[in-house]
Amino acid sequence: MQSGLDKIFKPNAIAVVGASSKRGSIGHVILNNILRFNYQGNTYAVNPRADAVGVMKCYKSVLELPEKPDLAVIVVPREFVAQALDECGRMGIGGAVVITSGFKEVGGEGVNHEAEIVSIAQKYGMRIIGPNCYGIINTAPAVSFNGTFSKLNPLPGKVAFLSQSGALGEVVLDYTNRLHLGISMFVSIGNKADISDIEVLQYWRDDPNTEVILIYIENIDNASEFRRVTSEIARRKPIIAVKAGRTESGARAISSHTGVLAGGDTGIDAFFEKCGILRAMSMEELFDIAMAFSNQPLPKGDRVAVITNAGGPGIMATDALESLGLEMARFEKFTIDTLRSKLPPMAAVGNPIDVIASGGPEAYAAAVEAALADANVDSLLVIFVPPILVDHKAVINAIIEKIEAASERKTVLACLMGSPSGIAGTEDLIAHDIPVYGFPEGAARALAGMSAYRKWRNKPEGKVIQFKADKGRVKKIIDASRRSGRRAIMGPEGLAILDAYGINIPASASVANESRIDEALESLHLPVAMKIDDQLIIHKSDIGGVALKLRTRQEVLEAFRRMKAKFARADQAFAGVMIQEMAGDGIETIIGMNHDSTLGALLMFGLGGISVEIMKDVAFKVHPLSEVEAREMIMAIKGYRLLTGFRGAPPVDIETLEGTLLRLSQLVTDFPHFESFDINPFIVMPAGQESLAVDARFILKE
Amino acid sequence: MQSGLDKIFKPNAIAVVGASSKRGSIGHVILNNILRFNYQGNTYAVNPRADAVGVMKCYKSVLELPEKPDLAVIVVPREFVAQALDECGRMGIGGAVVITSGFKEVGGEGVNHEAEIVSIAQKYGMRIIGPNCYGIINTAPAVSFNGTFSKLNPLPGKVAFLSQSGALGEVVLDYTNRLHLGISMFVSIGNKADISDIEVLQYWRDDPNTEVILIYIENIDNASEFRRVTSEIARRKPIIAVKAGRTESGARAISSHTGVLAGGDTGIDAFFEKCGILRAMSMEELFDIAMAFSNQPLPKGDRVAVITNAGGPGIMATDALESLGLEMARFEKFTIDTLRSKLPPMAAVGNPIDVIASGGPEAYAAAVEAALADANVDSLLVIFVPPILVDHKAVINAIIEKIEAASERKTVLACLMGSPSGIAGTEDLIAHDIPVYGFPEGAARALAGMSAYRKWRNKPEGKVIQFKADKGRVKKIIDASRRSGRRAIMGPEGLAILDAYGINIPASASVANESRIDEALESLHLPVAMKIDDQLIIHKSDIGGVALKLRTRQEVLEAFRRMKAKFARADQAFAGVMIQEMAGDGIETIIGMNHDSTLGALLMFGLGGISVEIMKDVAFKVHPLSEVEAREMIMAIKGYRLLTGFRGAPPVDIETLEGTLLRLSQLVTDFPHFESFDINPFIVMPAGQESLAVDARFILKE
Repeated sequence: MQSGLDKIFKPNAIAVVGASSKRGSIGHVILNNILRFNYQGNTYAVNPRADAVGVMKCYKSVLELPEKPDLAVIVVPREFVAQALDECGRMGIGGAVVITSGFKEVGGEGVNHEAEIVSIAQKYGMRIIGPNCYGIINTAPAVSFNGTFSKLNPLPGKVAFLSQSGALGEVVLDYTNRLHLGISMFVSIGNKADISDIEVLQYWRDDPNTEVILIYIENIDNASEFRRVTSEIARRKPIIAVKAGRTESGARAISSHTGVLAGGDTGIDAFFEKCGILRAMSMEELFDIAMAFSNQPLPKGDRVAVITNAGGPGIMATDALESLGLEMARFEKFTIDTLRSKLPPMAAVGNPIDVIASGGPEAYAAAVEAALADANVDSLLVIFVPPILVDHKAVINAIIEKIEAASERKTVLACLMGSPSGIAGTEDLIAHDIPVYGFPEGAARALAGMSAYRKWRNKPEGKVIQFKADKGRVKKIIDASRRSGRRAIMGPEGLAILDAYGINIPASASVANESRIDEALESLHLPVAMKIDDQLIIHKSDIGGVALKLRTRQEVLEAFRRMKAKFARADQAFAGVMIQEMAGDGIETIIGMNHDSTLGALLMFGLGGISVEIMKDVAFKVHPLSEVEAREMIMAIKGYRLLTGFRGAPPVDIETLEGTLLRLSQLVTDFPHFESFDINPFIVMPAGQESLAVDARFILKE
Repeated sequence: MQSGLDKIFKPNAIAVVGASSKRGSIGHVILNNILRFNYQGNTYAVNPRADAVGVMKCYKSVLELPEKPDLAVIVVPREFVAQALDECGRMGIGGAVVITSGFKEVGGEGVNHEAEIVSIAQKYGMRIIGPNCYGIINTAPAVSFNGTFSKLNPLPGKVAFLSQSGALGEVVLDYTNRLHLGISMFVSIGNKADISDIEVLQYWRDDPNTEVILIYIENIDNASEFRRVTSEIARRKPIIAVKAGRTESGARAISSHTGVLAGGDTGIDAFFEKCGILRAMSMEELFDIAMAFSNQPLPKGDRVAVITNAGGPGIMATDALESLGLEMARFEKFTIDTLRSKLPPMAAVGNPIDVIASGGPEAYAAAVEAALADANVDSLLVIFVPPILVDHKAVINAIIEKIEAASERKTVLACLMGSPSGIAGTEDLIAHDIPVYGFPEGAARALAGMSAYRKWRNKPEGKVIQFKADKGRVKKIIDASRRSGRRAIMGPEGLAILDAYGINIPASASVANESRIDEALESLHLPVAMKIDDQLIIHKSDIGGVALKLRTRQEVLEAFRRMKAKFARADQAFAGVMIQEMAGDGIETIIGMNHDSTLGALLMFGLGGISVEIMKDVAFKVHPLSEVEAREMIMAIKGYRLLTGFRGAPPVDIETLEGTLLRLSQLVTDFPHFESFDINPFIVMPAGQESLAVDARFILKE
């Protein structure tokens, strides 16, 4: 498939505009790298101020070139970038990588300079990576293009790396080399003046050389498109990302529980989960995980076997695996018998298998063979702490031989403790695609990453269900609120929005005058609750604006008088109260939404009371919710056990809860007007009884 | 001070028994290491089967040596160890390091062999390290003794390392070398047949060359002595430990909440906290933390300044620091003004200070100088991502110069991203005691470790308070339970134990016969609770054995009849019920104890209901509690906010809660008979009202 980006990533020929013979200059290093990395097309040096660069002829302008290259790499000073690009355009060059910095990232005039190069690109239909970037790499043999100013020679492989930071470019390439992690492509995306990270990711979706995608990202520009593209790619290729920095949750409505809880990393976690992106918490973790994905098949399950020759590291591996949610495999009887017959008497034949310090090639061979043959084993971690009296290389070769001989290809990781490069045979493991870790924890993190990815990919995609709703009624309420200058919609109006979306609300009546109480009580069943009906009062219950469980007419009357005495304002008529039938004795939940200015709407679910306010036991998902996600959200909180019939209580109506989440998700789709809302509480009842929302508070965007 | 272990750690001369000229053999490597490391005393080779080892004369037995060495290093095969030690004893040699393995660790005959060498040691008053160990090192210049079979030359320094795993010895030495972390002493403790880890730690307490102690530990033998010694050392020198493997919580009484919650890592965390030991979760983290302690002063507070030349790593550092509980320093106005005047216009003068990619020696010098001079800064993390056009060495030297010139010595860590050894100037930082990390997260972990240690060391030691108690009454209850073959003590007997320790319990009466109900009600205030009084029924409320809030005589009567109908057994008289005054509307808490077979008694505190059962929001401390620890425990739970007056409720009586924890701690001291207990609930009331224990359940040890 031909893509618009092929001219950049697979150019037929390259012009280096700003090529230089000054050692150490970027123009020198990039030209050198292209030549040294054995680029398969013609390379031209372009520099108005030189006749030759080294032994190469140097052209004054791309307009003088003997052929039309697909790509120009621009390294001239900022003041010459626009002219250089314009000449590229006139020459018909289709793509440019602009290394030069001093554009949008420096603010001021830089912003204008960036706008100028974008308009030049548009004029000629030219595509641009950058400006302000570290360059790009494509190791495909037919291309073999290193257009960065790195000192290092990248190793060819299956991993593509997208970096939003130019400064980290060299760090990334250094790290991949040290880990022997081969890369397919590397793109330093720079200021994204033209080509976005999303376009590059789409390119990698179809790049046959790329099997694993790594991202270092600082900000997300177009969250919904980013999500659409990554979640599609992630079904086929794993994406692992480091996100530096937390998102701002936008202007947070102080009245919203959800807003308070949605800050910091919560949103990013929910967003990446929706995208199918594995999140690594550091660069080290990113590469630990990448090594496994790049070299090994996905395990079919979470059952891990561990082989070691020293007790301690075996225990450390077990601790790390279990704390990350993986299981220690329980061996079949045949495996245990085999191990017992083949290993020395002091060896441990449980899991971890401890071949003990004297265990040599035969012991490791027996253990690897038995573990891989066991149907209860999904993946294997082989730990080797090199003892002085054992032939290290022979041990490693025995391990490799048995892995190669296994009838089924299972995930195998190695942990060689001590000097990683100092152990004879390390290179053999790497040559056989067995990733080598220095400590058990790194290997455990990699297996946990693979497990999370497998589960994400195997789960049904889910559907966003459409419900009937009375949109006109909601629109009217929003309009009325806007007209009166209020951002908060509460009380009867708040509940009416829910009602319009088919969510149960309690029977209620608004009463502003004592004489209307009897009439109201005719249509309501006692006991009732009374709430002051004033859109300006937010924390009603804190100031005596809520009376619950009023059992008699007399109690209702007294409550009304108290509230009127307390809240009536001298300058205007008493706003009145809402009288509501009391909900049954169900479980209080809270359902909320908060709009994150970067990530979009986040929906929240939790149990009410201290669960949300003190324990912060809540789950977030990025809007819109599928029915699968609604169910996941409910099951994600610790308090889920309370919903399923805890200590003899009847299980609650989870289906209605799910439906309510989905209806609210649809409300967010239909009305992007809301900054946040809390449905608090939503009382969920045992199946067969009516669950309902008792109170709701919506905050409109400014 | 002269110690019994000086003969081992500072020997005047050494005999290597089992010295060998066979290359690669342990006897060869150890002898070589002693010579190569320039041991300051005489070294003798001993081997009955050789006349010479290399150029050295070889003695048939230690008995033939021309002088009496303090120490023998034993590397002969297991069957000759006893004889070799016996000869050492006869020669008057005071200490031995037994490298040879095949003792207790292999079970069977090995156990007897180990007992034999212990008895030989006792016979001659000889002290032994090992057997089954990797050897010992003392880098003190007057000693300069490397008695291990490592391939590496340890660097002299301030860090002592105790390893319970011989296999990890080489890993540890390799790691310290790679990190340029100098060690004072290294001890592979082996099977601890004679000298224990505790004795070694005590030796290091007084060793002037040792300033930081690192431990790799797999099991704790004598928890109370270990705790006594380490908590004393930790007041002077930091101890950092990796514990591989979780403890078994002993036979867990299924009826105890506390027992269920106390398993796994909970106990170890509480134990290390009591010892003042910093726990590292991996070897990598251990060394990350050790590098900072070994080279830098403790910061005076948690306010960290970060300097970077690339945005991303600055954000990653901020994220890591904040998630570990440290604070980003807020600079004084003077600092910000200074930075603004000295840094390029695009630099960020907040925290992190971003000198941007073009920032060279001057920019770094200005940033370091300003940050260290700021009174709001307790520690500084300098990140440098080496850009191509900047003189790396000049930047690093500028950093060092300003650190050296600062008027106050603050904690400074460096993070050089990319190839750690590939950046010119790295060695200069190390030479100036500035630890170098490869990623910001490692440096952040180190600062967090320093902060935790500072807080532990600064907190008051606290006292264990003595209360008056009726021990005789408790003894009688325990004896009665034992006599009747019951391990569980519940109901009135359980409450009586609390009463004997001055803990409030509700007024109550036992009633086995309906005719006695009126008499009981005369002494009790309604409403009351009724509980079936049968020591065999554990989860009373689950099976209808509890009736609450009985408001009238009639309700009491009906409840009694229901229980009698339900629980009376055909073969014996009805056990009866306990009628208890209802507690007021306070906050339900749970206080418990679980005896961990390794660590001793663990006390637990949490809020009742879902907080403990679902959220597992509980705090553990190792018995005995000081008044400081009792308060810490209460404040450690998330639900603490509920106790201090949440949402307008009155604050509860925290002092009584503290007193109750302390009284229960004393109960555990006085009666080590209990496997576990739960006081559930202990109702804590607002100050001025009576808090009380409503139910208690004690389980005796088998």
